[in-house]
Amino acid sequence: MQETRLDTARIRAARRLIDPVFLDTPLYRCDALEPELGCAVSIKLETANPVRSFKGRGTEMVASLLAEQGSRAVVCASAGNLGQALAWSGRGRGLDVTVVASRFAPAAKLDRIRTLGARLELVDGDFDLARERAADIARHDGIRLVEDSLDLDTCEGAATIGLELVDAVPPYDAVLIALGGGALATGVGHVLKSLAPGVEVICVQPLGAPAMTLSWRQRSVVTTDSTDTIADGVAGRFPIPAVLDDLLLVADDAVLVREESIVAGMRMLLDHAGLVVEPSAALGIAAILEDRDRFADRHVITIVCGGNVDMAAYHRWTR
Amino acid sequence: MQETRLDTARIRAARRLIDPVFLDTPLYRCDALEPELGCAVSIKLETANPVRSFKGRGTEMVASLLAEQGSRAVVCASAGNLGQALAWSGRGRGLDVTVVASRFAPAAKLDRIRTLGARLELVDGDFDLARERAADIARHDGIRLVEDSLDLDTCEGAATIGLELVDAVPPYDAVLIALGGGALATGVGHVLKSLAPGVEVICVQPLGAPAMTLSWRQRSVVTTDSTDTIADGVAGRFPIPAVLDDLLLVADDAVLVREESIVAGMRMLLDHAGLVVEPSAALGIAAILEDRDRFADRHVITIVCGGNVDMAAYHRWTR
Repeated sequence: MQETRLDTARIRAARRLIDPVFLDTPLYRCDALEPELGCAVSIKLETANPVRSFKGRGTEMVASLLAEQGSRAVVCASAGNLGQALAWSGRGRGLDVTVVASRFAPAAKLDRIRTLGARLELVDGDFDLARERAADIARHDGIRLVEDSLDLDTCEGAATIGLELVDAVPPYDAVLIALGGGALATGVGHVLKSLAPGVEVICVQPLGAPAMTLSWRQRSVVTTDSTDTIADGVAGRFPIPAVLDDLLLVADDAVLVREESIVAGMRMLLDHAGLVVEPSAALGIAAILEDRDRFADRHVITIVCGGNVDMAAYHRWTR
Repeated sequence: MQETRLDTARIRAARRLIDPVFLDTPLYRCDALEPELGCAVSIKLETANPVRSFKGRGTEMVASLLAEQGSRAVVCASAGNLGQALAWSGRGRGLDVTVVASRFAPAAKLDRIRTLGARLELVDGDFDLARERAADIARHDGIRLVEDSLDLDTCEGAATIGLELVDAVPPYDAVLIALGGGALATGVGHVLKSLAPGVEVICVQPLGAPAMTLSWRQRSVVTTDSTDTIADGVAGRFPIPAVLDDLLLVADDAVLVREESIVAGMRMLLDHAGLVVEPSAALGIAAILEDRDRFADRHVITIVCGGNVDMAAYHRWTR
């Protein structure tokens, strides 16, 4: 494999910076899903922690290093989960955390960012507008900007999931990874391609927010004018070139799924696995549902990456 | 502490017999529950494994030891979770597993017992009738009977949860434990009283199935004629004297909660923690809801012990 920006030794070292509450998450075979999916499915569960998503792995690295350097403040743009995680990690280390988010983000995510003590600034636009605003704040205030997926800590934090997958027995054939900005996909993908190159790395994105997948397919950045998906956690329009370069090295495939498959995936995870997940976390199941033949009789891991969802919408989707 | 039947060294050794998929389960602070409960709450989550309850810890011990001895068959009575766990543990070791259950047990539990390859025999009565029938089968067929809570493996398997709690930081003030036959309560209670005696051990049972709690209060076995609770996992009428003796040594309190509090607890765990739990797993939250003053400003752990629930009933309870 050509070299990505990520470094396996640094990822191993990252485990020591991350609060153990985010590490060694459950990984288990879920037989009850299998009759409907036609393949062996294991769940890597990233929702049973104080921020209900995998993002704590990255923000723990960011906040540890900032605290070590004596920094006092940090800002990020967030679709909702990074902001919660940075707020949590910053709170424990006395950092002033500012989160910029879209006012259209799920209220549950925005409320939790505030509850965790971060300053929340809302923009009247989408995640990519929030990114611009966060960069302005960082420049103006002279504080550290955490850019999800561009910032190596966010990728290498997520990559610690990959280390836990590589250690797993029995061996498995493919890993399904939600694709948004790319931190999770490049992180986990880097570790798998380095340490378990036979495992297929499949990224999954909604048809309604396909920018990174289209970019991966064309091998150059493709942007879109808008997004239209319930999977708010992965809805970006402007792929970051350096992240795309990494993704081109580690992903074996990138697939797009329909909204109704995402909803069906959420419902299956609730009914057969007892898991409440946000739409982004159901992308893997959606991918299996849309191409059962591809996965037939294989053993697939899907990373259940987040569970922050507005319950009113959730009940509507899953009833 | 006077000596219970349990042994801390044997409990430590048990970790080596248990498939790691059941060990080191998530333990995390759940801030989102706290405004309504008025105390710090941490969740010990026992549902993110292949059988969705803590029972695998005990059945892994039983099945490991049977396989080592060259045994071929085993039988148990089950309210539904022990049977699933024994089926899972037996399947991996080539054991013939027979489970006797009430035909009124949740269909989801009965279906999963069958799916996991066990022979399921239903009795036209409650759990205590199933216990009699399982004992008959064991006698007739000359095979090992696993008696939940009486069998030390079931208690010492559950007790491994206690080891994980004792290792936790920050320190906490009380642990809320669902009380049924007593394996979980005596197991976790034994470890806490041995290694962290300052932590209050509080057992929680439904008012509609109070036999063990009434026995604990009177310090002698009290039986009831019937049970009336949605918490099927803890609904027994005949406490086992040896288990009561242990419980008298390790429990600081045993409280009874109303059905509406159990339902409120399930709803809170869904809405604020994103956790789908069976009624027995909501007993701890129910206990806090019924006595907020007792827990005010303390740090409480509640063991979320199982998530096997009929979804139709679940939706009815939580909507």
